[in-house]
Amino acid sequence: MHRLTIWAPEGLPEIVAGTDLGVAIGDLLAAQEPADRPAEGDVVVVTSKIVSKAEGQVVAAADREQAITDETVRVVATRERPDGPPLRIVENRLGLVMAAAGVDASNTPEGTVLLLPKDPDASARALRAALRARFGLDRLGVVVTDTAGRPWRAALVDIAIGAAGIAPADDLRGGTDTHGRPLNVTVTAVVDEIASATELVRGKATGRAVAVVRGADRHLSDDDGPGAATLVRTGPEDLFREGSREAYDRGRADALKPLGHAAT
Amino acid sequence: MHRLTIWAPEGLPEIVAGTDLGVAIGDLLAAQEPADRPAEGDVVVVTSKIVSKAEGQVVAAADREQAITDETVRVVATRERPDGPPLRIVENRLGLVMAAAGVDASNTPEGTVLLLPKDPDASARALRAALRARFGLDRLGVVVTDTAGRPWRAALVDIAIGAAGIAPADDLRGGTDTHGRPLNVTVTAVVDEIASATELVRGKATGRAVAVVRGADRHLSDDDGPGAATLVRTGPEDLFREGSREAYDRGRADALKPLGHAAT
Repeated sequence: MHRLTIWAPEGLPEIVAGTDLGVAIGDLLAAQEPADRPAEGDVVVVTSKIVSKAEGQVVAAADREQAITDETVRVVATRERPDGPPLRIVENRLGLVMAAAGVDASNTPEGTVLLLPKDPDASARALRAALRARFGLDRLGVVVTDTAGRPWRAALVDIAIGAAGIAPADDLRGGTDTHGRPLNVTVTAVVDEIASATELVRGKATGRAVAVVRGADRHLSDDDGPGAATLVRTGPEDLFREGSREAYDRGRADALKPLGHAAT
Repeated sequence: MHRLTIWAPEGLPEIVAGTDLGVAIGDLLAAQEPADRPAEGDVVVVTSKIVSKAEGQVVAAADREQAITDETVRVVATRERPDGPPLRIVENRLGLVMAAAGVDASNTPEGTVLLLPKDPDASARALRAALRARFGLDRLGVVVTDTAGRPWRAALVDIAIGAAGIAPADDLRGGTDTHGRPLNVTVTAVVDEIASATELVRGKATGRAVAVVRGADRHLSDDDGPGAATLVRTGPEDLFREGSREAYDRGRADALKPLGHAAT
């Protein structure tokens, strides 16, 4: 029977700047029943929040808007809001397009906001090394998750912003479907699906920042692999590089410039 | 321990137009070991492909481009391709924004393409009724999945296009985070995460079109609920209602019209 199991233990202590995350997570997992400790083929999934906290990626909340500005590489779209500063959807320094550049005001002490980790793929690699050593494992994946909205759909899902020891995407191109036809375009974002799956067990308001996934071992790699950065898809080919309103306004402005008309 | 388990049995027969899906899936699940048959609190997840096949939502492949046109309510963005007709990202009749309007040329006999189900929420409700009766269950969720790309990220994930007996989103607004602060914006697309999670077990080229999820019972509802259609988020407020190039071109054209200039 094809089966996947995900579990998320309680009891991770508060993570603060300087916490050795590999030790803290290793301790948490070592304290579980033997069957719930990491084994060959498992994927350990952690929220970016605890990675950020351990790295000290925390700034004062009064500077939230400035923090968003600082994390912004490129503004994609904005929307005025009656009850606050404009919503900004931006490309951040990790290439991720997100509301508020991924700056997070929840699950962090009052008066602070969390920035995203400096390099979540590197954090995933470090965590993988620590946990492989701790538990004596060869094949172990690590995924670092964050929460994001998406165009055309309400509500949020978790995605992978860091990954090590696991192929980020399951490339079936070259394979065939059940009718023997070539699968040309079916590339599955495995680590995003893993992130979403674990969110169902971790939750948001729970303090369960670590989960283990068993049954996805066919996606694991012997090396660290290319990381979740390979799922970033921005650049001049991006069909949604700008919000519709921003692109429209720019079209108007560009049309009127050579004619000496100001855009109104 | 917070735990989620997902399994996907083999052995669903080929589904064709007129197949009673409730019976076919019921038979499949009834043939499993007792622990793997649906129980109170489970969610049964099925691909839209088998729903489409059972409904006869199949058209001739030669008409794939026409089928896409017929399923299109509104073109969002297009991109020329050197080796085929332009890629069209469109809003289809279900409000879903997808490449090729969700018309599917894989996992269907040569010479045919699959359209999306006529009403996946209704299909979910019918399936829920059939399986509740078959297995004597009060609390059972059903989710119908499809595969979709997303802006700014490579590769595809599964999402929910139909749902019954389960809250589509986990609305934590009004709750508090681990620091006691109000969670104002954290609404999780639970059924999309369930769809993604099951894809890890179903796969694409496998014929495993049905999965069961155990451990998500807190999301279940006693009634059918509003369905996955509530996750559709389009309309005039949509910041990405048009592709950037389309919006830019329209801005240029609109700027030049009153001046009597043709847009070049």
